[in-house]
Amino acid sequence: MISRAKLDEVLKGTFVQNFIISVIVANAVILGLETSAVITERFGGLLKALDAVCLAIFVAEILAKIYARGLRFFRDPWGLFDFFIVSIALIPATQGFSVLRALRILRVLRVITVAPRLRRVVEGFITALPGMGSVFLLMTLIFYIGAVMATKLFGTTFPEWFGTLGRSGYSLFQIMTLESWSMGIVRPVMEVFPWAWAFFVPFIMVTTFAVVNLLVGLIVNSMQDAHHEEDAQKTDDYRDEVIKRLEAIEAKLERGGRS
Amino acid sequence: MISRAKLDEVLKGTFVQNFIISVIVANAVILGLETSAVITERFGGLLKALDAVCLAIFVAEILAKIYARGLRFFRDPWGLFDFFIVSIALIPATQGFSVLRALRILRVLRVITVAPRLRRVVEGFITALPGMGSVFLLMTLIFYIGAVMATKLFGTTFPEWFGTLGRSGYSLFQIMTLESWSMGIVRPVMEVFPWAWAFFVPFIMVTTFAVVNLLVGLIVNSMQDAHHEEDAQKTDDYRDEVIKRLEAIEAKLERGGRS
Amino acid sequence: MISRAKLDEVLKGTFVQNFIISVIVANAVILGLETSAVITERFGGLLKALDAVCLAIFVAEILAKIYARGLRFFRDPWGLFDFFIVSIALIPATQGFSVLRALRILRVLRVITVAPRLRRVVEGFITALPGMGSVFLLMTLIFYIGAVMATKLFGTTFPEWFGTLGRSGYSLFQIMTLESWSMGIVRPVMEVFPWAWAFFVPFIMVTTFAVVNLLVGLIVNSMQDAHHEEDAQKTDDYRDEVIKRLEAIEAKLERGGRS
Amino acid sequence: MISRAKLDEVLKGTFVQNFIISVIVANAVILGLETSAVITERFGGLLKALDAVCLAIFVAEILAKIYARGLRFFRDPWGLFDFFIVSIALIPATQGFSVLRALRILRVLRVITVAPRLRRVVEGFITALPGMGSVFLLMTLIFYIGAVMATKLFGTTFPEWFGTLGRSGYSLFQIMTLESWSMGIVRPVMEVFPWAWAFFVPFIMVTTFAVVNLLVGLIVNSMQDAHHEEDAQKTDDYRDEVIKRLEAIEAKLERGGRS
Repeated sequence: MISRAKLDEVLKGTFVQNFIISVIVANAVILGLETSAVITERFGGLLKALDAVCLAIFVAEILAKIYARGLRFFRDPWGLFDFFIVSIALIPATQGFSVLRALRILRVLRVITVAPRLRRVVEGFITALPGMGSVFLLMTLIFYIGAVMATKLFGTTFPEWFGTLGRSGYSLFQIMTLESWSMGIVRPVMEVFPWAWAFFVPFIMVTTFAVVNLLVGLIVNSMQDAHHEEDAQKTDDYRDEVIKRLEAIEAKLERGGRS
Repeated sequence: MISRAKLDEVLKGTFVQNFIISVIVANAVILGLETSAVITERFGGLLKALDAVCLAIFVAEILAKIYARGLRFFRDPWGLFDFFIVSIALIPATQGFSVLRALRILRVLRVITVAPRLRRVVEGFITALPGMGSVFLLMTLIFYIGAVMATKLFGTTFPEWFGTLGRSGYSLFQIMTLESWSMGIVRPVMEVFPWAWAFFVPFIMVTTFAVVNLLVGLIVNSMQDAHHEEDAQKTDDYRDEVIKRLEAIEAKLERGGRS
Repeated sequence: MISRAKLDEVLKGTFVQNFIISVIVANAVILGLETSAVITERFGGLLKALDAVCLAIFVAEILAKIYARGLRFFRDPWGLFDFFIVSIALIPATQGFSVLRALRILRVLRVITVAPRLRRVVEGFITALPGMGSVFLLMTLIFYIGAVMATKLFGTTFPEWFGTLGRSGYSLFQIMTLESWSMGIVRPVMEVFPWAWAFFVPFIMVTTFAVVNLLVGLIVNSMQDAHHEEDAQKTDDYRDEVIKRLEAIEAKLERGGRS
Repeated sequence: MISRAKLDEVLKGTFVQNFIISVIVANAVILGLETSAVITERFGGLLKALDAVCLAIFVAEILAKIYARGLRFFRDPWGLFDFFIVSIALIPATQGFSVLRALRILRVLRVITVAPRLRRVVEGFITALPGMGSVFLLMTLIFYIGAVMATKLFGTTFPEWFGTLGRSGYSLFQIMTLESWSMGIVRPVMEVFPWAWAFFVPFIMVTTFAVVNLLVGLIVNSMQDAHHEEDAQKTDDYRDEVIKRLEAIEAKLERGGRS
């Protein structure tokens, strides 16, 4: 029987990686073809069978990985991600059938785990998130306050838009994206509450300003990272050399002066 | 009786801070639950009582702070902010009842005063404002001129959108955010005034260009601040050391030359 | 009689400047009040008279400036700007009466000429324009090609949107701003020409990408300007000093070695 | 007969370049005039003849270039671009007549090949593309997954928007541009599937975040390029000189110490 370390190496090897990528792409195509009513009618059974084969391969790969790495597999966030995505398809679909079937396409996201370049981009995105934490918290605060105020002020008159906290939050998100905020929402509201602009216009200004600040923060952070990695080491090396040489010259002069 | 300085220290301590944060969060949840008609019907009295308790705690905290710090409390802008926000709830609500009740949720903004990280973000926002002063003034000018022109040109034909200076200002703000500017406003206007695009298209270009410049200014300022704080001190120290060492070498050579 | 040079100095002095600014502000308020039908009905004559007084002051100021500076007045772009803006009001309004009356509010733009801070912002905007020249030319090209194609392809079926080159240009501008591009324009067009998305989606991608590049260019230029003005001089001074001192040390050693 | 090298030089010369630019501009005007029904009715024949003349000149120029440069012509991407654009007009137009006629205006794009400044801008755009490759791949992935899910979930109920993979992709593109996403698409969908926001709101957040990251990457790359080209060489020269001088001083002291 193959040893755990050896199996791990095989699983990480180019051959298995490329095989898994092709299975993912094939599975993506299969699930894409299933959206066509005409094709499903004629080849529905075949597509289902092929999808089951793809799923079986994924399950086998993950089981092999768990056997090879043991608990370490679950400590790697990407491993957990794969495990979770593949598990969705194994939940017995009784209720909410169509939603669970639709979620199977998420399996295609496994390509991120396998392709290093995509993985790096996603890791870059995730790294940027903590720096946005405070502004994000502030926006949640603004949205919560805005939703409570909107529900209390306009909830009874416009239940469709501001009837509950959830509806208000959704409407405020729509307003923040500037979609139909005026013609669709605020002008109708202003026909009943003429001063409603005093709530919505500042809301738009504050939220877009916060979003702009998020963006600016992102740009500044990226620039500094890029700046530092590249130039800083070179500059530090140069400075160290200058100082060392100057010290050597002084030492020599000291000796020369004494001699 | 406790001394003023001691009281101030207690109020600034972790225990009181955390207690106040939990009261704010609890108050936010209470005011959120009040938006639900079902919950208000069953627990309305309880929620009102709990809200009153929260308000009492805030009033007590602010009175304690004023006692501890005296006039210094009002010199701190965050102190004034807290004072103002809590005061809203104490205004006897006779007229415009619903608006005042809705404003109570603003109390949740107190969390900014108490949580240092959020406070820093908001202070960063406010620091960015003065640099935007001139562009802001210019945009007010453009909006005023635009509103006067739009009112004079289109006011009688489209009173709903451009009837008064205020309505024109609101409509121009909507147009600046690009919301339904063409299908909603300018195309209907152009059916009466075919040359109306010659007013609105340049308005859109000028205002979006000004907004973009605001953004660019913000980014450039943030970058320079970030740049300076980090590297400049280190560079200055290095340069000072190089010059000092060079001077020392020259001085030694001078002495050496004379000896 | 006062000398030309003396007059120029008086005109540039703080007193005249502040007086002109107050007249501009007063004129802005007068023209703003004129938009109200109620106020115009009661004080229309007074407002007209005050407006005439303001205009007279502006004309007198400009004539004085022309007398003081001669042809130099017309060489200064801001002088020409003032001259042009004030002249509008002197055109006898026979035809297109309302438009000319509405243009009078442009006089308020004179505040930019007088207030140095606003002037600098506008000059900054204008300085940024030439750097955008090539991208701007390219966008004109894309718009012209897009307008010709849209007119030929969709002009007969949708004369309201794409009937002439001008209408196509306007519609494409609307589409570039993403306003109702899909629900308002492209979906209806696709009901007749199902492949229409193959024209509009690339158009949106290319124009927004070009706009983004304009923005990026603007940011990069601003950063470099800011960077250079501040740090470069200091760095150059430091480097010159280091090199000079090193040369001095070498020269001394040379002499010391020979002695 | 003229030699190949001589012909190539003549074709690259200012005279031929300017002549070709004027023919391009003339052709652009001709094709623009053809969009007007009134002008086509009166001068249709003349315009057609002039267009044929322009086309003949372009064909002659490209044939001359192919003769002068041989296969090298096809190795230059701009040569291929010219060849392709001019060829469109030579395809016999039997079916899809109007589309091929409309594509003739693409010939105006030849101005990019001829004008060096425009060429540099477009080359700058194209250079920026590879750096966006990974994010672009990721967005294709997100769109594919989103389209499959949307088709499976909402396809049968809203065939107009999500009936096929293509329609879902188009609708998701519209939603990503934030055009009528809520009032036009998501609110109607939510009337049947109340939880639909849980699909669309994250989709909007993820795609706009990815677009923002594309933008940030673009800015950071441009800045670094600009930064390096300008300052880096100067800094490197300075540093080399300092080190060289310090080494010289040390060498002299070494000799001086030994002597």
